[in-house]
Amino acid sequence: MSFELSLNTGTTPNLSLQQACAAVAAAGLKHIGPWRHLLDQAGGAEVARTILDDHGLTATTLCRGGFLTVAEGTARAEALESNRAAIREAAAIGTSELIMVVGGLPAAAHLIGGTGDAGDKDVVAARQRVAEGLNELAPYASEHGVRLVLEPLHPMYAADRAVLSTLGQALEMSAPFAPETVGVVVDTYHVWWDPQLKDMIDRAGAENRIASYQICDVNLPIAADALKSRGMMGDGYVDFPTISRWVAEAGYTGPVEVEIFNDQINNQDAALTCQTMQARYNNLVLPFLKGE
Amino acid sequence: MSFELSLNTGTTPNLSLQQACAAVAAAGLKHIGPWRHLLDQAGGAEVARTILDDHGLTATTLCRGGFLTVAEGTARAEALESNRAAIREAAAIGTSELIMVVGGLPAAAHLIGGTGDAGDKDVVAARQRVAEGLNELAPYASEHGVRLVLEPLHPMYAADRAVLSTLGQALEMSAPFAPETVGVVVDTYHVWWDPQLKDMIDRAGAENRIASYQICDVNLPIAADALKSRGMMGDGYVDFPTISRWVAEAGYTGPVEVEIFNDQINNQDAALTCQTMQARYNNLVLPFLKGE
Repeated sequence: MSFELSLNTGTTPNLSLQQACAAVAAAGLKHIGPWRHLLDQAGGAEVARTILDDHGLTATTLCRGGFLTVAEGTARAEALESNRAAIREAAAIGTSELIMVVGGLPAAAHLIGGTGDAGDKDVVAARQRVAEGLNELAPYASEHGVRLVLEPLHPMYAADRAVLSTLGQALEMSAPFAPETVGVVVDTYHVWWDPQLKDMIDRAGAENRIASYQICDVNLPIAADALKSRGMMGDGYVDFPTISRWVAEAGYTGPVEVEIFNDQINNQDAALTCQTMQARYNNLVLPFLKGE
Repeated sequence: MSFELSLNTGTTPNLSLQQACAAVAAAGLKHIGPWRHLLDQAGGAEVARTILDDHGLTATTLCRGGFLTVAEGTARAEALESNRAAIREAAAIGTSELIMVVGGLPAAAHLIGGTGDAGDKDVVAARQRVAEGLNELAPYASEHGVRLVLEPLHPMYAADRAVLSTLGQALEMSAPFAPETVGVVVDTYHVWWDPQLKDMIDRAGAENRIASYQICDVNLPIAADALKSRGMMGDGYVDFPTISRWVAEAGYTGPVEVEIFNDQINNQDAALTCQTMQARYNNLVLPFLKGE
């Protein structure tokens, strides 16, 4: 079955993996995209796999690896080792798609709780370190049957979270690798504004690199915590019919993941969230994926 | 003289044109980039020109025309007429460079005090209306010796202020027109994150389309009013040496305008602002423009 809906657990951050799986299964969905800390809390990836199996769910992605912009030294070795662990966890829970948020500038590392280098604002060099990190990780990912899925983040997060800002840039960075080993995710929140979006979705599809289609809306004004400006589909400014049509025309037929960081939605009953997202999906997204 | 500093009056929003000119002249600068409402308040563009002349200042740009994404009807006719007035005002104060903020989605018009169409989230169509508007305005601008200067805005403003988000997109939109008639501005705040920045600065230079180099820094976290996240050079995350080198290597030798919307800076004494910006410019920007 094509275009089946999946809940990314970032949408229900107050729930354990067990609770999120129960909510998803109760809503009649078959897929979930968990974050790594939920696996840890559940007792590890193998236990997590059992929880998914018990609820008849498959994992569409694992969130997340990345943060490869740290310079040489212990911190870099730790970042690479954390990514290897994430690769093993993805394989253990049965998904081939490991979402990668590549990391920001060392000068901004303190903003997300890291230690960096206040003087290092060199975005070109930071991108180069991401490329080098992928080079180191790709063989390990391939051995485990896992794809490193590059997520271009909205440029408002370029300093603190991801020096990877466009789908085109993600494809350039993927180019040295097989499409089974390095892919991209199309997340409407991050890429809706991109003037090259249609062309780059086409290219990603032609290269078989679209690993996931993630959807949520763009709320304005920007939330006090800028991460939480994501909204329920239809509540903001994204043209879901158009982007969904482009994604399907590029040949994508996989699951569609809903990932919404938003205080109100995150704190409401998960049953309501699942119900609303399914209704909005059926109205604003699915018909256009199906070419209706 | 190359690379002379100019104060954009958005940096000193509490001052009248007379006051801003006095502050700029007192700081030993020779250039100012005024906003249109200051011209109105001064009694019109001709009076404004006299005020500039009296202080020995030249206008580097006029801010701003644009907002061409409105659909057909009275509002569109008004937008075009407002742009024609802006073209006349630019000519009257003696600058050839009219900065254009092209406008956002009709669905987001209410966020900046306009009336739009809550259902219209079609960014592709909005961009097309900008292109059509330029087509209508270009001959009039040319007759007046004024260049329409497309300003790509950071993608965080794509919904409410400008569906023009990258320098590459601005160059594509400029392509049908002579470089004396439609150009681009490189504003570090808006474009620093762009993976294609160096290539597009090169291209803009080769096409003689760089009409202005505007500088300010990127502060994080994003301010409550997202417009006001601009910072003094050196306070944020922009790599000024690198971008300044690229701009000079592309052949730009014109003035450099400082435009900072930031509550603290906007409310401090203008003499302090001018002093700080000059010091930061001399340290972080000018040596790299000069290739030192």
